Amino acid sequence: MKKKYVIGLDYGTLSGRAVLVDCADGTILASAVKNYEHAVMDRSLPGGEILPGADWALQYPQDYLDVLAETVHTVVQKGSVPKEDIIGIGLDFTSCTILPVDEKNEPLCEQEQFRGEPHAYVKLWKHHGAQPQADQISALLEKRGEINNIQYGGKISSELLLPKVLQIAEEAPHVYEAADQILEAGDWLTQRLTGGRKRSGNLAGYKAMWTEETGYPSKAFLKELSPLLENLAEEKLGSDIALAGEASGTLTQEWADRLGLAAGIPVAAAIIDSHAGMPGSGVSRPDQMMMVVGTSSVMLALSEDGYAKNGVVSGVKNAILPGYFALESGLAAVGDMFGWFVDNAAAQSCAKQAEEMGANLHTYLSEKAAGLKPGANGLIALDWWNGNKTPYVDGRLSGALIGCTLTTKPEEIYRALIEATAFGTKKILDLFEEAHADIKTIIASGGIAEKNPLLMQIYADVLEREIMVSDTDQTAALGSAVYASVAAGAAAGGYDTVGEAVSNMSHLKDIVYRPNPENTERYRELYGIYSELVELFDPKKSDVMGRLHRLRQ
Amino acid sequence: MKKKYVIGLDYGTLSGRAVLVDCADGTILASAVKNYEHAVMDRSLPGGEILPGADWALQYPQDYLDVLAETVHTVVQKGSVPKEDIIGIGLDFTSCTILPVDEKNEPLCEQEQFRGEPHAYVKLWKHHGAQPQADQISALLEKRGEINNIQYGGKISSELLLPKVLQIAEEAPHVYEAADQILEAGDWLTQRLTGGRKRSGNLAGYKAMWTEETGYPSKAFLKELSPLLENLAEEKLGSDIALAGEASGTLTQEWADRLGLAAGIPVAAAIIDSHAGMPGSGVSRPDQMMMVVGTSSVMLALSEDGYAKNGVVSGVKNAILPGYFALESGLAAVGDMFGWFVDNAAAQSCAKQAEEMGANLHTYLSEKAAGLKPGANGLIALDWWNGNKTPYVDGRLSGALIGCTLTTKPEEIYRALIEATAFGTKKILDLFEEAHADIKTIIASGGIAEKNPLLMQIYADVLEREIMVSDTDQTAALGSAVYASVAAGAAAGGYDTVGEAVSNMSHLKDIVYRPNPENTERYRELYGIYSELVELFDPKKSDVMGRLHRLRQ
Repeated sequence: MKKKYVIGLDYGTLSGRAVLVDCADGTILASAVKNYEHAVMDRSLPGGEILPGADWALQYPQDYLDVLAETVHTVVQKGSVPKEDIIGIGLDFTSCTILPVDEKNEPLCEQEQFRGEPHAYVKLWKHHGAQPQADQISALLEKRGEINNIQYGGKISSELLLPKVLQIAEEAPHVYEAADQILEAGDWLTQRLTGGRKRSGNLAGYKAMWTEETGYPSKAFLKELSPLLENLAEEKLGSDIALAGEASGTLTQEWADRLGLAAGIPVAAAIIDSHAGMPGSGVSRPDQMMMVVGTSSVMLALSEDGYAKNGVVSGVKNAILPGYFALESGLAAVGDMFGWFVDNAAAQSCAKQAEEMGANLHTYLSEKAAGLKPGANGLIALDWWNGNKTPYVDGRLSGALIGCTLTTKPEEIYRALIEATAFGTKKILDLFEEAHADIKTIIASGGIAEKNPLLMQIYADVLEREIMVSDTDQTAALGSAVYASVAAGAAAGGYDTVGEAVSNMSHLKDIVYRPNPENTERYRELYGIYSELVELFDPKKSDVMGRLHRLRQ
Repeated sequence: MKKKYVIGLDYGTLSGRAVLVDCADGTILASAVKNYEHAVMDRSLPGGEILPGADWALQYPQDYLDVLAETVHTVVQKGSVPKEDIIGIGLDFTSCTILPVDEKNEPLCEQEQFRGEPHAYVKLWKHHGAQPQADQISALLEKRGEINNIQYGGKISSELLLPKVLQIAEEAPHVYEAADQILEAGDWLTQRLTGGRKRSGNLAGYKAMWTEETGYPSKAFLKELSPLLENLAEEKLGSDIALAGEASGTLTQEWADRLGLAAGIPVAAAIIDSHAGMPGSGVSRPDQMMMVVGTSSVMLALSEDGYAKNGVVSGVKNAILPGYFALESGLAAVGDMFGWFVDNAAAQSCAKQAEEMGANLHTYLSEKAAGLKPGANGLIALDWWNGNKTPYVDGRLSGALIGCTLTTKPEEIYRALIEATAFGTKKILDLFEEAHADIKTIIASGGIAEKNPLLMQIYADVLEREIMVSDTDQTAALGSAVYASVAAGAAAGGYDTVGEAVSNMSHLKDIVYRPNPENTERYRELYGIYSELVELFDPKKSDVMGRLHRLRQ
């Protein structure tokens, strides 16, 4: 059979990447990355206008198109495969990253009259300027007794779509008025590529409080929130939805020419970048969990039931894999916390010894820490250096180290920090099981999963599961390619199901981390202590960390 | 008037010191120190016999006599004053540091048949081998409903006399049997110098559960504790007691000749080393508090009422200053904790910058920390790196650091540790006030008080009191000299009261640390948070630290 190929695109916070992938076995033939020219705008607009708040984060939409044109062109060239054999495109994007556009799908920020208006630009996922609006929405949902609906997700983060849209409507009503649509950037790209108006059910379900059964929040609710938003759903959002692996349309002739591809090939519905990592790392079964361990971490697992509380969000059914809800959570700081330790709290003596051994500090500390018995240091940490997502969803919470004595050593603290992230992950696993996931194996990916065997072994011992590691470090881009191959379908040389595509295209390394029974037992005791601490600092019971946060302001 | 002089002796853990002091103004004319030849024996006896436990700490009594002979001789020579003008001797000693002696007051460990018997040697204050006996005594006091009697001090530490004696009786009954007396080392020295049998009320009151009204624990209690101890009080202890500033007797001709002094001069009753620091640093009034800040810290204040709970012990009335109970407490780690931080947790970058500035790390971190606003780092620590004395008296408790974020800096942690010791000190001050002390000013001494103005200012801001610093770094030895001058009396050229002696002999530096009202307000908020944490980790409510301690074993 003739070889067929797909293109996967992965849009991150600072750059976008394209891969050209062999449908048969997932081989990545070519890869290209391009940084966004305007990166993240958190101080001023391109014209120099200062942003209204310190917690703003904007982007410039043309940067996404530049990535598209350049990286796809590059991988097609480098891969040197006939363009007729490239049978589909898929893309993932950070989310919720939104922009207002006109009826021609042109971003408002590119129109002369809006160039100096911050609200006309892309609001990046980590734009936190809409916190007052998020609080307002939470209060209304509480009042209506709806806050714990699966649709609303248990806690309204300022990163979601509705707070960001309400902020535009309240602070720049003329922008809201002028917008024909307010779109996720991922949807904007697939709409540009296809000339259509379909949106991603993955993006809508996780970030815009949409469900297949109920749609977006009701007119009554939106009106009570703000009269400005009464007609938001029908006027500015869109109910033509494509789910995971479905096509949002086919490539227009114009974009086919620009990219050097064949017109009419399917463009898969956009998906959240971390979600693309699920098929990309090889997870397609309900007994598996995806775990990305990098600067922070993300966990995803499948369940037949929805769940939305304690920092776990399942979004909507069929959003990542057909037939399932996908439970999502993660830790706000993992590698970032180890990096903090090395930069700010690893003694000079360690640095000297590491230098003598020709090792970096992480390697040195990991090797020393590997010689310790679990908990033998009598230390325990709460891994909340960047706030807590699970179970409290509270950015005001902070890290803690308990059990210090005059004999506490740097490598003992380093190990306690690694263990704390393992315990935080176990908390998430416990909640996933409460939400009826039944996880037997874990598939890890991300920089730390590849580089730190001590951490992986501790995770296996704490989580009491076998952990395998994905064979690629491009799990998100590969996942987008998987969705492209499913949107193309078996008849075209792709696949009819995500499961089949994953089985053929995603691979694992040979190594398996297996729980060590002796360590497992000690870690049960330590996890008990960790859980007691998590209870002790429950913000509903103790205001210690809240008071510290206020002092920090 | 002709000048008169006294000698003050200060027996510490590793060495003894003598000072020759001018009675008129407290000038130290000469000073001499000698290390104990056998230091602390925590592994084996002089003959090589291995000690039975890891928590043993013994000393060799001849070392004390060697210090006496050599240092007194030296200061008399160096001072070159006529021996007739030296009108008294006083001494302080670590406590409870006890030894069994025969009817001639010779230590049993020097008799041939006991040379290989660990229980025949001096048990140093930090001998912790009697923990099971301490637990046994606590249990019996609990059972009898007597644990909170002032006489028993609220919690029986293994460092007290009764657990140590019970350990001898149980583990070496032949040593107990052979002992004519079991004596505090301080009392043994004054008895040797005077040929008498008086004991110090200070030592008996603080360490042997003795009060003027009730004497030692009752025969009934002792019998119930162990039939071996039924006659302990009348057979092995002694009820002929001298209180603070009283003489335990006069110098014998034999010792006068050996030391180059006049026979017949008074030898003041021995006193606990930290207590001697009270008059030595200039404290003699009930509106003052003594605060020694070094590796650990000691606080002493006067009250008309006794108090013995929450880690505060008042011992007996008249034990340090006539007319008053002296409330005592302290922190188990202060300088030790800062030293731990610098050695184990100060980042390499700090070390480099300190080196470039030619400063040591403490100086560098203090200077950086001085630029921070109180609590602006949103960090708080529990200063329990060496267990907690006040309010829980629990060595299993451990240090904690709460409020860490990815932006937490080394100097912020350093400041939080200093602040934690200030809050721990305020806890003690609060308890002292609960015990009816009325403290207006604080007189500090010790290495850190002299060297770290940032710490002193933070203490002033947190404690909301003016803090002055003693002019000498020999507060204990000077305090012993003060007692010697009072034992001698005004008629001989000394003083009739401790107050008069202190006014004339103890002096303060010019510097005064005054509370800064702005900081004081912020620190009230932080102290509230600290207090909430202290409550959170109350071992009666949370077993987190207890569980961590067990894991550490």
